Amino acid sequence: MNEVLVEIITIGDELLIGQIVDTNSAWMAKELNKEGFRVKQITSVSDNESHILEATDLAFRRADVVLMTGGLGPTKDDITKQTLCNYFQTELVFNSSVIDTIKELFKTRPNVINELTFNQAYVPKTATIIQNKRGTAPVTWFEKGGKVLVSMPGVPSEMEWVMSYEVLPRLKAYFKTPSLLHKSVLVYGYPESALAIKLTDWENALPAYIKLAYLPTPGMVKLRLTGSLPDSHQLETAIETELITLRSILGKSILAEEDIPVEAVIGRLLKEKGLKLATAESCTGGNIAHLITTIPGSSEYFNGSVVAYSNDVKIQSLGVSPESLSAHGAVSQEVVEQMATSVLKCFGADVAVAVSGIAGPDGGTEEKPVGTIWICVCTNNKLISRRFQFGQLRTRNISMASLAAFALIKELLETE
Amino acid sequence: MNEVLVEIITIGDELLIGQIVDTNSAWMAKELNKEGFRVKQITSVSDNESHILEATDLAFRRADVVLMTGGLGPTKDDITKQTLCNYFQTELVFNSSVIDTIKELFKTRPNVINELTFNQAYVPKTATIIQNKRGTAPVTWFEKGGKVLVSMPGVPSEMEWVMSYEVLPRLKAYFKTPSLLHKSVLVYGYPESALAIKLTDWENALPAYIKLAYLPTPGMVKLRLTGSLPDSHQLETAIETELITLRSILGKSILAEEDIPVEAVIGRLLKEKGLKLATAESCTGGNIAHLITTIPGSSEYFNGSVVAYSNDVKIQSLGVSPESLSAHGAVSQEVVEQMATSVLKCFGADVAVAVSGIAGPDGGTEEKPVGTIWICVCTNNKLISRRFQFGQLRTRNISMASLAAFALIKELLETE
Repeated sequence: MNEVLVEIITIGDELLIGQIVDTNSAWMAKELNKEGFRVKQITSVSDNESHILEATDLAFRRADVVLMTGGLGPTKDDITKQTLCNYFQTELVFNSSVIDTIKELFKTRPNVINELTFNQAYVPKTATIIQNKRGTAPVTWFEKGGKVLVSMPGVPSEMEWVMSYEVLPRLKAYFKTPSLLHKSVLVYGYPESALAIKLTDWENALPAYIKLAYLPTPGMVKLRLTGSLPDSHQLETAIETELITLRSILGKSILAEEDIPVEAVIGRLLKEKGLKLATAESCTGGNIAHLITTIPGSSEYFNGSVVAYSNDVKIQSLGVSPESLSAHGAVSQEVVEQMATSVLKCFGADVAVAVSGIAGPDGGTEEKPVGTIWICVCTNNKLISRRFQFGQLRTRNISMASLAAFALIKELLETE
Repeated sequence: MNEVLVEIITIGDELLIGQIVDTNSAWMAKELNKEGFRVKQITSVSDNESHILEATDLAFRRADVVLMTGGLGPTKDDITKQTLCNYFQTELVFNSSVIDTIKELFKTRPNVINELTFNQAYVPKTATIIQNKRGTAPVTWFEKGGKVLVSMPGVPSEMEWVMSYEVLPRLKAYFKTPSLLHKSVLVYGYPESALAIKLTDWENALPAYIKLAYLPTPGMVKLRLTGSLPDSHQLETAIETELITLRSILGKSILAEEDIPVEAVIGRLLKEKGLKLATAESCTGGNIAHLITTIPGSSEYFNGSVVAYSNDVKIQSLGVSPESLSAHGAVSQEVVEQMATSVLKCFGADVAVAVSGIAGPDGGTEEKPVGTIWICVCTNNKLISRRFQFGQLRTRNISMASLAAFALIKELLETE
């Protein structure tokens, strides 16, 4: 089975002056990898015709597929489309189906469509045009001697949509890649190296056709098992056998056995149990509520949140006692428990979580350094509160505290 | 005046399977750009000798400086150092000052130093060795026909330290770089293409030494002016002259004249005016509070938020009238105004913003399709409420509504 090599070229002056970080490449590389393609090189170049041509030429020499993002906006600085016409010796022609797609996209906002948008419908004559249902720039697919070049918009939400629903399925069909089976397991509470040590024996005993990858994110490690066998039923059984052992080793540290956001795991759990959640947030500043409500349908199980950033709000809206605040401080077991039990009652919820901590960079003391976080979860008849110690970075502390809150909700609900 | 061209090569298998996002390149590009270097290309390759050699060779053909990160760890898969010896036809020799630096770094944890660490002291014979005071891998600096290659560790904190304190100062001394001046302007309320049409005459009249770039993000366009002239005072004056015209064209659509997050713009405005903010959020689900509190020191001007996701919470915690809810629905001018005035009072704030809308994918009607959002901002004596129509995507609607809320806060505060 031949390996299909891919190169990614991201185009845009903003990448080369460091104004934006190229997150597209990593997203694409991850998705390509899952489907059995191998990314050989990632190249970022500016909106410069001769440099784009050179990069394309070199990429085609090394790889079977060239995936390009960026430079497809309607303004003068975006030149990818014209450059590809020169590369493939073709010309721009008007394509009315692009206009139809744009009109459908903006049907509630027709005044957004203007003359420049209309230019988006001029597309390379010899390319296959793939409609982009998330933006104005269509995707163009070129073929050349058994190799493929695809040019996609650089806006991450648009690129992700066209890759997932249009480009990847077509690439898999074109190159007849072997089918792989992936299984993701989200593990909470272990640094990567500690998890690797804990799993050494299990990992060494895995059959050769099942590969394991550790994908660490702040506070969590995603394990990905990738299997490849001609008999897909046999493969599924083999992977399930390995998972049974993994569950016995990791127990409750497994947050989910699929690659979904932790807030979706919590949402599903609440929905299954028919419970309503409320949150009371100090240092996380609304991030827990925000994450919960990114999930469609979250209104079924989420009542709301009090973001009690000031002590006055803690006292007046959450009924935290001024005595507790002055005796123990806002970052304390007493205060966080009062926050949780109060929001549970006020918001008519079945489960509540409260967080109070020092996100930093200021506000730390010797006793409670930056990164000290108290979290409490409760129902009407149960309560867990716990102190965590994270690091120095504000945004990371907010993320880590939100994740810890989700893990604690799961722990409480599963000990019922 | 000669432009000094730089290429960045980041090395590591983890980049090409999408396990980590390459944030090093953007950081380096931004710092290089500030010092007048121009980054020509960014290339990511795996830990593969022939591919590293090829990438180095091509980079040297295009650029004056090649900056490399990664592949300097002490384990078998890291091969950058040996590969560079082959490229520059030299050999590894023992350098005792590297060991001294490592011993100093680990003086409180001497047991961390092992045989593998010792290998870090073998360095290319013909390179200048620059000590890395943040990690075990030294920086190597090669010169070749007036060009320079620098190999640095890939750990971001180590790379940032060696770049800031060792590599950049040496590069500036080696090449006498011209200075560039950048000016960013954040423009709200125009799609990229509509803004381009509005600015056509102004853009066409820009002097040749000032370049303009459009950097669109959801709901906002960042304009970047980049100027280059031998006389930096003359350049500043010229850019300021262009900005005066730009301000007269765009007026209040300019959210800021620097490249900072909008939540930081609002934070600074509140701080300057000595005002406290509170938010009442329905469809944004806490995202506005979350964004506000990502900024260090936001407790100075942010009291808190009520995330009123359910109607019960709107009634009980925000005193929204059940009659208004049943007569007009939660997504209405009446309800959003009650939410804003109520949280202003309950949270003892000077400014309040409330948002209620249909983020989607469900909940839309013909009269109020998905993407319909009402926003109200108020102080004790003023109030603005406005209806917005965004698109179909839930997370994008949440972002757009949050941005619109910030723009409306700014509008209210500046009409005082």
